[in-house]
Order: sequence, then structure tokens, then C-alpha cells
Amino acid sequence: MSASSRILNLAVIPGDGIGQEVVAQGLKVLGAVLPQDVKLETKEYDFGARRYHATGETLTDADAEALKQHDAILLGAIGDPSVPSGVLERGFLLKLRFLFDHHVNLRPSKLLPGVATPLKGEPEIDFIVVREGTEGPYTGNGGSIRTGTPHEVATEVSVNTAFGVERVVRDAFARAQARPRKKLTLVHKNNVLSFAGHLWTNIFNKVAAEFPEVTTDYLHVDAATIFLVTDPERFDVIVTDNLFGDIITDLAAAVSGGIGVAASGNINPSREFPSMFEPVHGSAPDIAGQGKADPTATVLSVALLLRHLGYEAEAVRIEDAVSADLAERGTTARTTDEIGDALAGRVAG
Amino acid sequence: MSASSRILNLAVIPGDGIGQEVVAQGLKVLGAVLPQDVKLETKEYDFGARRYHATGETLTDADAEALKQHDAILLGAIGDPSVPSGVLERGFLLKLRFLFDHHVNLRPSKLLPGVATPLKGEPEIDFIVVREGTEGPYTGNGGSIRTGTPHEVATEVSVNTAFGVERVVRDAFARAQARPRKKLTLVHKNNVLSFAGHLWTNIFNKVAAEFPEVTTDYLHVDAATIFLVTDPERFDVIVTDNLFGDIITDLAAAVSGGIGVAASGNINPSREFPSMFEPVHGSAPDIAGQGKADPTATVLSVALLLRHLGYEAEAVRIEDAVSADLAERGTTARTTDEIGDALAGRVAG
Ligand SMILES: CC(C)[C@H](C(=O)O)[C@@H](O)C(=O)O
Ligand SMILES: CC(C)[C@H](C(=O)O)[C@@H](O)C(=O)O
Repeated sequence: MSASSRILNLAVIPGDGIGQEVVAQGLKVLGAVLPQDVKLETKEYDFGARRYHATGETLTDADAEALKQHDAILLGAIGDPSVPSGVLERGFLLKLRFLFDHHVNLRPSKLLPGVATPLKGEPEIDFIVVREGTEGPYTGNGGSIRTGTPHEVATEVSVNTAFGVERVVRDAFARAQARPRKKLTLVHKNNVLSFAGHLWTNIFNKVAAEFPEVTTDYLHVDAATIFLVTDPERFDVIVTDNLFGDIITDLAAAVSGGIGVAASGNINPSREFPSMFEPVHGSAPDIAGQGKADPTATVLSVALLLRHLGYEAEAVRIEDAVSADLAERGTTARTTDEIGDALAGRVAG
Repeated sequence: MSASSRILNLAVIPGDGIGQEVVAQGLKVLGAVLPQDVKLETKEYDFGARRYHATGETLTDADAEALKQHDAILLGAIGDPSVPSGVLERGFLLKLRFLFDHHVNLRPSKLLPGVATPLKGEPEIDFIVVREGTEGPYTGNGGSIRTGTPHEVATEVSVNTAFGVERVVRDAFARAQARPRKKLTLVHKNNVLSFAGHLWTNIFNKVAAEFPEVTTDYLHVDAATIFLVTDPERFDVIVTDNLFGDIITDLAAAVSGGIGVAASGNINPSREFPSMFEPVHGSAPDIAGQGKADPTATVLSVALLLRHLGYEAEAVRIEDAVSADLAERGTTARTTDEIGDALAGRVAG
């Protein structure tokens, strides 16, 4: 359903830990920012640790079919120490990215005024990472033999296709082209992972020829982590593979104010399937239910969601509200609810 | 040849760019620190870009045989933009690590007094990373089909064996056991790369039972990059796979004073083959031949080399000299040679 139909039919997945609390604030702000004539319809889905413990299910075929009926998905956080590592990741989060072909994993990093960075010199950080979301070492290819014996061999296969690389590289070039600095950096490790590296580098160079205004650059992933702490201002748009993107976006979040404010979108640009928006942070069970969680990353994820659905003005209103709120917040700690109220007040105003 | 034979028979590979300059200072300090009764024999090998352009060779069987005759190898830097990406990495650096079974890639990170970190708050950084050096995604396994066409598929295979993981995990536990804090962190991504992840995690837990005094910890690689900038003091010893180790040691070098002071050892603990010691930085062709390169990382690599060969007192003398030199250096820039002279003077003194 497109933005012009004036119904926003949203799937809401609060998930585990602080997920519930932060999603509630995301919805509060969404309700406040939407134009009067847009009808917001939400349906809540109970995925995550509780459902897994109760039924053993993570995401059934029926679940996936139900989710497909929505315009977009808002997710809080999935994950709990009571569930073995990998079960919810592989069975829910990654399954959804693959099923819905979320090949553009969009992660903006902007150091907002008033936000503390661990870096000296208050750098002006403002870049986005376009992480490939459906290939690379994340496909689950691989296996092990003689498992648990002294002769075990375990493999992980990174799968990269021209089709998969070209579409995400093209998306990143288009995003770079639309930004004032028009600069795109490819991050890979093509001197060691040379099969995948050549594919990425060749396609990057081929597509670059179609975007003559975009300045291009290449960095090995190890060097990229150095620049993220010594010279983050050099980055405008980064495109990279699934695993490198996972690593550098957490580092990027850390240097640009922490995962409390880091938003992300798992995007299917063709809109064939709904895209999913979520904060980069996890379920933080240690502070769950105490009203201590910062909902800002979720609210910024709502802005990405609105932009994806064509509500650009509303997305900007949320981003401006968050900037103003962070710049003007005092030193007294606020509850999750108070931050949500403040943001909802600003976007409505 | 062991330390007690009182001959140190060293292979020296200056390599490309600033390699020549920094290795000269490393040898100067080595000559100054060695006891009078130890005879230093060095043989220089001309590997790297020049040799590759002249002969097409990177490392021949005869070269490898010749290198095997030495007690250890000191390397400056290998790499030049005139050589296609991957040729010298795969054909020389990685080839040597695999041929000589350098499975312990040791990379200490210590923020020395007087050294600038990009992080606020002057954290007390003092940890070592034990990076696996002969497995993981570095094996060169993989390939591509329909190369260069829109239907290309390129794979990279991470190969992990119980044998390979256990020996490096054991080495890391022993190093943790020998340090005052006795803490070891496993870094992996076992929630996504679950075949390799289970192997690493199971072996880590098994070996942990033999080291009851060592406190253990697990972090996903993405979370580890966050802590490296927000709380680097939490780390004592880290053990991790080849690729994650590559990435986090560059980041670790960046936060603990930059790659100008980051040393590394490619170690074969059994001493079946000579180990190789080298600065983490590259050949920096932009500043080569200008006397601007900081030889400190090479000199610290010489300390690691001496420690490996049993010259512990001499290793400590070098490390103390570097600490004192960094703490007391003025603000006037010194040449490569001046820094080497200062360090040689201190260790001799
Ligand atoms: C939870 C995990 C599967 C996930 C990933 O590795 O992609 C997370 O780290 C992220 O970055 O969204
Ligand atoms: C040059 C390259 C092959 C190497 C690696 O990736 O191991 C380098 O980055 C390092 O860390 O020593």
C-alpha cells in the first residue's frame, strides 16, 4: 500500500527486554507526527524469547504470510540470554531478512549536537552505511564434520553474487549522489578475500562509471576501523558486505553517540515485501521494565520507516525533534516515557 | 638454534617503502641491546615489490628453504600500489604465515605514557590480542564461477579445525594465566557463524576448565569494537580468529597510540620454523625515503622477537627504553634515525 492511500498498516514486533518499552514510544511519536488524514493501523506480533519458550517457534510460514500484508514492520529488540545463541538470530532476525529480501541494510551515523562521543575533538560525523543484507557469510552455508571430536572441521561459506552485489552497490551510489558531498567508500578486504573482493571491486568500478559526480574510494575493513576513530569525518556513504557492515556499523554507532541513538532499516527497495525498521541496540534484559531505556534509536528508526514509505516531511520532523531534544536536554535522567512524551510533543507542535 | 648457543642468526626483510628505514633502526637497537657474548648474524633478503617487478617472484621454494635456516625473521613492510592488490599479500605475507605455521599472531596494545589516543579520558589500555594465523577465511579456499558476468557467484570459505583452534586457544589461556589480571575474552560471531562459532566456543570452554584461575568472557566481534572505544580497559587477553583478529587489532592499534607504535609477532610456538616479527603498519610509500617514518613499532617488534627467543631481559630493556623515550620526547619532530639513535642509546646505557 503506498503513502498516497493514506492508510499506514504497520506490523509491530516489540520483542524481548526493553523492546516493549521503546516500541511504545516509537508508536507514540508516529501517532503524533502522522497527518490527520492518514489512518494508522497497527497489529502487534508476539515474536521472540517468550514465544520460543512457549511453543518452540521463532517464525512460522503463517507468521511470514501475515507480516507480508503490512506496509512496514517496526521491531523493538529480539534476544534473551535464556535462548541458546543463534536460535532467534537465525530463526527470526536473519530469516526475516532473507525471506523479505532485505538487501539494503541502512545504518546512518550522525553525531547530533549535545551527544557525547568517546572521541576527542568533537568530530563532525555524518555518514551512512549501506550494508548488504542477504549474502556474504550470513547465508548459513557451511557445516561441520567430526563435530565435537579432536578432528572436527567447521566451515562457513561467504556467498556473493553479481546480482546481489550490483543491486546494493547501485543503491549506495544513488544515495551518495543525493547527498551534498557525493562520496562513496567501498569497504572490503579484497587483498585477502580475493574471490569476493574482485567481484565487489569490479562491480563497484563498473557502476561508478554511471555516477561520474560521485567521488569513490576504497578501504580495507581493518583500515576502515582505524579511520572511524581517527578521522570519521572522511566518510559520507559506505557500502560493504554483510559481515563487514555488521562490524563497522556497531563501531560507527559507538563513535557517533552510542547505540542508544543508532537507527537502522532492513530495506527491500522494490517494496515487494515490507521493510523492517529497528534500533541497532539489543534487548538489554538487565534494564528491561525499569523505564530506563532510551527510545531515541527506535524513534529515529520510525523516521527511516516514514522516509521509506514516502513520508519525507514527517521523517524530517522526527529527526529535527530528536536533534532539538538532545541539544536541549538537561542533566537530569529522564524515563523512557518522558523522552517519548518530549519527542511526541515536539513533532506534534 | 636456541638462545643458549649465543648466536642469533637473523633473517632481515626490509621490504618496500619505509621498510628499509625502520628495519635499519630495529637492527641498530638490537645490536645495542644484545649481550657482548651473543654474536648477531644477519642476512638480508630482497622480497617485495622490487623483486616482484624484476622477476615475477614473490617467495620461491628456495627462498623459503633459506629463511628456514634462521632463528627468526625481522620484516619491515611489504606492499606497494604498483603491485595488484593481493599479489604480495597472498604470494608473500600469507604464504610465509602458512608455510611456517605461524598460528599465533601476537599483537600487544598498550597505551604508553606520553602517547596520544583518539579516545577521551586517557584510558589505561594494556591488553594483547592472540589472533589465529593459519585458518579461518584466510586459507584462500573459495572461488568464482561465471566470473565477470552478471551471473558470477564468488565464495570465500572459512576453514576452522579443532586442532587449529585448540592450539591457539591454549596459547592464549597460558598467556592470560601469566598476566596479573588473568582474564581472557573470546571474540567471535557465534550467533551467526554458528558452525565455526560452536567449534571456537566449545573448545574455549573445554580449555577454560584447565585454567580455573583465568576469568573468561565472550563478546561478539561487533560488540568488541564498541568496547574497544568505550571501555578498552576491560580487555586483558583476547583470542580470536584470523579475520576478526585482523580487524580488531588495527582498531586496537588506533586507540592505543596508532600504528606507529604497534608491534606484532607471527609466531610458531614450537619453533619448528622461524617466527617473523614486524610492525603492524604498512610500507607507507608516501613518506618513504624522507626520514619521517617512526621506527618505534619495529623496535618493539624486535622486543617481541627477543622474548620469543628467550632474551626476556633484553626485551624488557627495549620496552622500557621505548616507554621512557615516548614519555620524555619533546615536541620537535625527530627523524627516523634520531629516534633509532635515542632508543639504541637508552638500551645500551
Ligand atoms: C543479532 C545479529 C544477527 C545481527 C547481525 O549480526 O546482523 C545484529 O548484530 C545486527 O547488526 O543487526
Ligand atoms: C596485509 C594483510 C595480508 C595483513 C592481514 O590481513 O593479515 C595485514 O592486514 C595484517 O594485519 O598483517
